[in-house]
Amino acid sequence: MLRPYFKSMINAPQPLTVKVERRVRFEEVDPLGIVWHGRYPSFFEDARGALGEKYGISYLDFYNNGIIAPIKRMHIDYHLPLSYPDVFVIEGILHWSDAARIDFEYVIMDSKGALLTTGYTVQVMLDPNKNLYMVLPPFYMEFCQRWKRGDFK
Amino acid sequence: MLRPYFKSMINAPQPLTVKVERRVRFEEVDPLGIVWHGRYPSFFEDARGALGEKYGISYLDFYNNGIIAPIKRMHIDYHLPLSYPDVFVIEGILHWSDAARIDFEYVIMDSKGALLTTGYTVQVMLDPNKNLYMVLPPFYMEFCQRWKRGDFK
Amino acid sequence: MLRPYFKSMINAPQPLTVKVERRVRFEEVDPLGIVWHGRYPSFFEDARGALGEKYGISYLDFYNNGIIAPIKRMHIDYHLPLSYPDVFVIEGILHWSDAARIDFEYVIMDSKGALLTTGYTVQVMLDPNKNLYMVLPPFYMEFCQRWKRGDFK
Amino acid sequence: MLRPYFKSMINAPQPLTVKVERRVRFEEVDPLGIVWHGRYPSFFEDARGALGEKYGISYLDFYNNGIIAPIKRMHIDYHLPLSYPDVFVIEGILHWSDAARIDFEYVIMDSKGALLTTGYTVQVMLDPNKNLYMVLPPFYMEFCQRWKRGDFK
Repeated sequence: MLRPYFKSMINAPQPLTVKVERRVRFEEVDPLGIVWHGRYPSFFEDARGALGEKYGISYLDFYNNGIIAPIKRMHIDYHLPLSYPDVFVIEGILHWSDAARIDFEYVIMDSKGALLTTGYTVQVMLDPNKNLYMVLPPFYMEFCQRWKRGDFK
Repeated sequence: MLRPYFKSMINAPQPLTVKVERRVRFEEVDPLGIVWHGRYPSFFEDARGALGEKYGISYLDFYNNGIIAPIKRMHIDYHLPLSYPDVFVIEGILHWSDAARIDFEYVIMDSKGALLTTGYTVQVMLDPNKNLYMVLPPFYMEFCQRWKRGDFK
Repeated sequence: MLRPYFKSMINAPQPLTVKVERRVRFEEVDPLGIVWHGRYPSFFEDARGALGEKYGISYLDFYNNGIIAPIKRMHIDYHLPLSYPDVFVIEGILHWSDAARIDFEYVIMDSKGALLTTGYTVQVMLDPNKNLYMVLPPFYMEFCQRWKRGDFK
Repeated sequence: MLRPYFKSMINAPQPLTVKVERRVRFEEVDPLGIVWHGRYPSFFEDARGALGEKYGISYLDFYNNGIIAPIKRMHIDYHLPLSYPDVFVIEGILHWSDAARIDFEYVIMDSKGALLTTGYTVQVMLDPNKNLYMVLPPFYMEFCQRWKRGDFK
């Protein structure tokens, strides 16, 4: 699979982005001396969480508005490995979607900007009874409206 | 600290024990080729969980009876390391206590019976409002009575 | 992305499969009461490891033959969640490839056979100097020859 | 066990300390809504690592000087729980020892300074052949001499 992971939609607003820095922990490295591939969901979640806080759509914001947003799909492309104690940057990129889903892309770079890892997640939205929202719930619709009219520029 | 971790009380019934087998996973091993020391709480929990199920005091049994039993203390003595893909045995040993606390001891052995790790945990019991039980809650008292009269031999 | 994750090649031998059983651990469950999505790489690895041991291409077999096989891509589709203490089955399916890559598919089912999770990984092969094998290294070629002539049926 | 975890020795230099801040991750929280007790070894390691870097005795410094320093004992007292997304501070305190061992104490506080967790680890030192250093290896002795003469004040 080649990027772009998500197709751009006509008239869609620019993606929202955030960058977080993190450092490889000793415990994250495997016997081959590189970060075990299964640690990366945590890296992605750091960026997803930071973007959520920056734009008012954090896990707790969702929860307080009766929305649970489970991951339905995760995809990771490992280009170059991380070692201990590398410092790296995780960029989270929220892409616009007309549907009731949350499309996140992730780009991990080393401290010099070299591309290490890319990936994406897709989330859906459930109400407190675990029923799928087929249209945007009001809280998230309001966020999307602000995004579309340029409040986050 | 030398074992015994817990003092034997006079007239206390024999400890209850269980053994579970587990195998080192690749992801549990650190760059030095041994299981990272921070994985052992999971090993202990496997034995604690198995004993709970064997004797009717599992996490869910507690939960369904309005008891939460958080860990208040954990202690681990690392004698010999584990490597990938070692098979090992975790023995969980529940010691009798007259107080409203749960005293577990753990012994990890390799497949030939060599002693690798020992440790213990101490749990207290909380009600659903997170108030400490100062005396045994009825569910656990009943378990203790069965233990004391020898039902588990 | 819809399955099949990998295209069948003409004249390719049947995939090799293995099933392993596992049980949700308390520590694997998140505050929403379901297994955190980032635990599944471990589940997949259990099946991949078991298939490797069944057919003589385990991590250690590779290592002893000068081959490192890092994950280059991982994809997970989450259909239904796992809760504590569910028992589940992970099926690992090794698909034939003419190239020097290892294509694994994974299917997670609950104890009644309901489909919970699917996914795949792609691995490449490196020599001890971390150079990519462009053609099959002898050890893996021999395995493929045995596979193709039906030794594993 | 009550603190102090380590006895003060006469003429010992003051302990060396460091503080690191960390934030509870979603994945670290268990179904009861508190950080699972088995995550704390990672918290302790963050402080131990930071102190090592501050004073030139990091994991890599050790490694480059032919010393491996495995954990032989870990002890944790859980006073109050952490929840998502709490910010907390981990203080690492290196106590002087005349023997070839490394005695670390840890104190975790919430953002208001309330005491949440305390604990300690004991490490020994091994040479590259995994033989125990019975006396201080030169690299660590030099560090101790600088510590004793007050270079780190």
